Amino acid sequence: MKTSIATVTLSGELPDKLEAIARAGFDGVEIFENDFLAFDGSPADVGRMAGDLGLKITLFQPFRDFEGMPDPLRSRTFDRAERKFDVMQELGTDMVLVCSNVSQAALGGIDRAAADFHELGERAARRGLKVGYEALAWGRYVNDHRDAWEIVRRADHPNVGLILDSFHSLSRKIDINSIRSIPKEKIFIVQLADAPLIDMDLLYWSRHFRNMPGEGDLPVTAFTEAVASTGYDGYFSLEIFNDQFRGGSTRAIAADGHRSLIYLADQVRRNVHTPIGAAMPERAVVKGVGFVEFATDMDESVELVSLLRALGFRKTAIHRSKKVTLFEQGSIRILVNTDPLGFASAAYAVHGTFAYAIALNVEDAAKAYQRALALDAEPFRQPVVDGELEFPTVRGVGGGLIYLIDDTSPLGRFPEIDFEAVSDETGIVGAGLLQFDHVAQTVAYDEMLTWLLFYTSIFETRKTPMVDIIDPSGIVRSQVVENEPGTLRITMNGTENRRTLAGHFIAEKFGSGIQHLAFSTDDIFVTARSLRSQGFKPLHISPNYYDDIEARFGLEPDLTERLKAENILYDRDEHGDYFQLYSGTYGEGFFFEIVERRGYRGYGAPNAIFRIAALKKQMRPEGIPKDAV
Amino acid sequence: MKTSIATVTLSGELPDKLEAIARAGFDGVEIFENDFLAFDGSPADVGRMAGDLGLKITLFQPFRDFEGMPDPLRSRTFDRAERKFDVMQELGTDMVLVCSNVSQAALGGIDRAAADFHELGERAARRGLKVGYEALAWGRYVNDHRDAWEIVRRADHPNVGLILDSFHSLSRKIDINSIRSIPKEKIFIVQLADAPLIDMDLLYWSRHFRNMPGEGDLPVTAFTEAVASTGYDGYFSLEIFNDQFRGGSTRAIAADGHRSLIYLADQVRRNVHTPIGAAMPERAVVKGVGFVEFATDMDESVELVSLLRALGFRKTAIHRSKKVTLFEQGSIRILVNTDPLGFASAAYAVHGTFAYAIALNVEDAAKAYQRALALDAEPFRQPVVDGELEFPTVRGVGGGLIYLIDDTSPLGRFPEIDFEAVSDETGIVGAGLLQFDHVAQTVAYDEMLTWLLFYTSIFETRKTPMVDIIDPSGIVRSQVVENEPGTLRITMNGTENRRTLAGHFIAEKFGSGIQHLAFSTDDIFVTARSLRSQGFKPLHISPNYYDDIEARFGLEPDLTERLKAENILYDRDEHGDYFQLYSGTYGEGFFFEIVERRGYRGYGAPNAIFRIAALKKQMRPEGIPKDAV
Repeated sequence: MKTSIATVTLSGELPDKLEAIARAGFDGVEIFENDFLAFDGSPADVGRMAGDLGLKITLFQPFRDFEGMPDPLRSRTFDRAERKFDVMQELGTDMVLVCSNVSQAALGGIDRAAADFHELGERAARRGLKVGYEALAWGRYVNDHRDAWEIVRRADHPNVGLILDSFHSLSRKIDINSIRSIPKEKIFIVQLADAPLIDMDLLYWSRHFRNMPGEGDLPVTAFTEAVASTGYDGYFSLEIFNDQFRGGSTRAIAADGHRSLIYLADQVRRNVHTPIGAAMPERAVVKGVGFVEFATDMDESVELVSLLRALGFRKTAIHRSKKVTLFEQGSIRILVNTDPLGFASAAYAVHGTFAYAIALNVEDAAKAYQRALALDAEPFRQPVVDGELEFPTVRGVGGGLIYLIDDTSPLGRFPEIDFEAVSDETGIVGAGLLQFDHVAQTVAYDEMLTWLLFYTSIFETRKTPMVDIIDPSGIVRSQVVENEPGTLRITMNGTENRRTLAGHFIAEKFGSGIQHLAFSTDDIFVTARSLRSQGFKPLHISPNYYDDIEARFGLEPDLTERLKAENILYDRDEHGDYFQLYSGTYGEGFFFEIVERRGYRGYGAPNAIFRIAALKKQMRPEGIPKDAV
Repeated sequence: MKTSIATVTLSGELPDKLEAIARAGFDGVEIFENDFLAFDGSPADVGRMAGDLGLKITLFQPFRDFEGMPDPLRSRTFDRAERKFDVMQELGTDMVLVCSNVSQAALGGIDRAAADFHELGERAARRGLKVGYEALAWGRYVNDHRDAWEIVRRADHPNVGLILDSFHSLSRKIDINSIRSIPKEKIFIVQLADAPLIDMDLLYWSRHFRNMPGEGDLPVTAFTEAVASTGYDGYFSLEIFNDQFRGGSTRAIAADGHRSLIYLADQVRRNVHTPIGAAMPERAVVKGVGFVEFATDMDESVELVSLLRALGFRKTAIHRSKKVTLFEQGSIRILVNTDPLGFASAAYAVHGTFAYAIALNVEDAAKAYQRALALDAEPFRQPVVDGELEFPTVRGVGGGLIYLIDDTSPLGRFPEIDFEAVSDETGIVGAGLLQFDHVAQTVAYDEMLTWLLFYTSIFETRKTPMVDIIDPSGIVRSQVVENEPGTLRITMNGTENRRTLAGHFIAEKFGSGIQHLAFSTDDIFVTARSLRSQGFKPLHISPNYYDDIEARFGLEPDLTERLKAENILYDRDEHGDYFQLYSGTYGEGFFFEIVERRGYRGYGAPNAIFRIAALKKQMRPEGIPKDAV
């Protein structure tokens, strides 16, 4: 796939944008006119900058309100076009995007428009330029690519072609099979954008909510398949208007865009057997979370280890050469790394005690790694001593690490190789914790789409719809990445403000990261009792909560009493019941959760407000700011 | 008007919310159930807190999915209601809001719903409680207050009444005259919310975009007039779901809410001659900006004064007792205050050189002051020496001051009284600047509605629709408050992020404030030439800009050349032409603008992106951060 992106997608000034686009690996760039106009350099300067970065200028855009104008507006419009042709020749691009007319002055009429385009095609041809016509979803007369195509067909000029844009077609639910009968040479360029499904005014939706293919809910893959079926082999170019992207990191958004296109090409290649993208292994099937590793130091590890012990974890092994200890319970493995050398120590120095690495147990680690790299994941390596295992590793959220391990290779059996078994002398009894239920990551809101795209493109997962969680100090947006068997479940909480519990965590930790780990049990009451006997202090939940759930779900008073006595939260969906028990916060806001699922498939979102209020109340003495100013 | 507000409107925890609500001056409060459930105290504790603060609990809300349920859900729903009645009695409130059923299980049918309400009324009556029924705009069967009223009518029970909510009725464009025939005693409470007019899914719009009456575009005043015409004299209660409010300052949002109700009552009182609000003077007519005063010190004033001189301002008077100098040109007066004592000095210490005060020349300063105080404006006084004038003064944006002066009282002739005329020896020649065209304030985005409401409620002004300005580093939202004759024009720019030019200004200045002053001329070219001769350095605009406007507006090449030579920006609307000339930035991002209007009514929004890019380029060396990370 030949990749391109419009400068309007990114924040920053034009040179910054071009540099980020080249660095992300795009082949081409669309120059959005205002970016060029605000730039204090000539068109030739811009052309040179792009050329020096190895970027082809695929398109100059947009040229508005062209077709169907009455005179004298019509002749002025052609004059205006000639001026833009001058700019394009200096820029060194051969194509301009003309979007369908929205002017009140326009007259309409397909033949009139076609005649205008024929004349524009003649003028363009004299200069060796091409004109692409795109139907805006809110165009005055033309708002459907089928009508735009009919105009292009009747314009009947080799220098006039069609520009397709997934947003304009999909937002109006136009049958995308209508694309399959367009001759590929008449499709001059294809613009791609996705968007969350929110029913609103098309222009408002388009200007503020677009996002990268795969980040939203539109069938962009099916759209691209229809385009690919024509044999089209030109540029696929991202044109995304998004408030968040416009305020975000230029490089990070450009990188997301490139990843979204590679992933899209991979899906299209598999579905329609078109050589549109490079071959790569399929999305990796995750069989479970192999372990989570904490970075800490000797002093701070004391509190963490005592919390793990109160949760029933037993020390089972120590690393042969590093200060790393393994704790286990059920199939859950937690590593506590206090080694003063290496990446963990550096991460600790920046973030404090921190669940900095997660090992995903995949079917084939080498293939998963290959796919991750093909999707622009950043590889990570650190020196290992002789004979020590080296896992394929990529950078994860908040600069943490994701180890890729499997159990058909020696890598999956890491404790037997690098570690030495020890026996735990503390007499700790397990609390019935069985496995990781989910890993909860807290991220700055503008990184949320980045990590959703990262996980869904590399691993065989799906994302759930976004849910708003009402924190007393603001809204936290929550979305889940999970796989069908439930062996990988990652909840992502995005926060915009620092006063929410999630925002406080990010501010204290200097970045996004894992904020809590949820373990499963098959009997929450037995586990709660066992934990209590080991000195575990659950998070205290308001009694008002229990009165409400008893009324809301029609619970037996006896059950409500037991829940209340153990501070267990309850939820229910059409599949079954859910029980949740929380620890208080530790360090900069990290905490643990224990859940029992009786068929339930969600994550207890309705309980989040009560859990957050309770955690905040507990943290208050340590200085989380009160909201009132 | 008896005022109330729902706790869900504000951020924070329940005690903070109640305290802010009482402090803002509300009479009552609606307890939103989740706020209560998350609170770790009994219903009686909440009731006591409210009582201690002098707040009546007007409503407990919401009770969902009640009417029209089939058995056994029906009997469970009644059980649930009894549980909530228990809570209400403990809380000390007598009314519950039941919103129309959205459950898939509900059966519909007006008589069935009426029968359910009759039974609920019986149960409520036994406890001395009342039930209010509200039609949600997205209710499954009932989504219109007229249907809800028919159900209440047929329920025919004194303890069952109707709850009206302006958002639910106005968002569906239901004829509000239908309210006028409802008996006042059957309207149990009235909820109010406004919203910006954006066409989108009703539920999404309601959950995220509601705002205070007068802050949005819905005809809330007409709605309230219809309610008032029934003789209704109960509570008007704000129930506002808004993402921004949920993350905002609890106290500031509560204060805005109270102001919005006072203003609304004042409008209704005038329009329908109903004694719904306290009598107060009409909105103040502003005849012009009397002066703007800068706080600075001796050192920093040097650069400011030399910029004023380059703009053609002459020193005309000095204060008799303080270090304050008056500069004049045309009818423009600028005070430079370097006095080391008093508020200006304190403001300077916090914010640096800062246009900290603005004097508005109104028809009657005493009446304007009276109105401002009635609308919760914060009065400001500082010690004055004998015989020195004291202006009625209120706090304005960013902690600055607004002096209210008039020219029928001695207050309007301030320079002749407090000041001594001096003659400027510098030989400065005026540059043809005539008067203040507009004052541009930059505010944190979440303060924007606060200041829009402040200005529009106190002064005879209107607000224009919000415009998005694309800063290279993010979106800046811009909205204008202006009066019909154009003697007061205030532009408000709201920014969410610190990397925009506006955000940088706020970050550097530690707060919102006036970021630029625009002066008018009646010949921009004469002014530009004159300024040039005095050493004024205009902001350099990219040549690309001029190629575009020539093509876009069909300008004569000669005119374009003159604009380009003087770095003048150009715009046009249906009323005429507009010319803009900018200074570079001074201090923490302050700048001046000179405009010529030839009938034009806007503010050059299409040029903002080019002006911002040019200002950022100029500031770059001083360290505005590059966006790329």
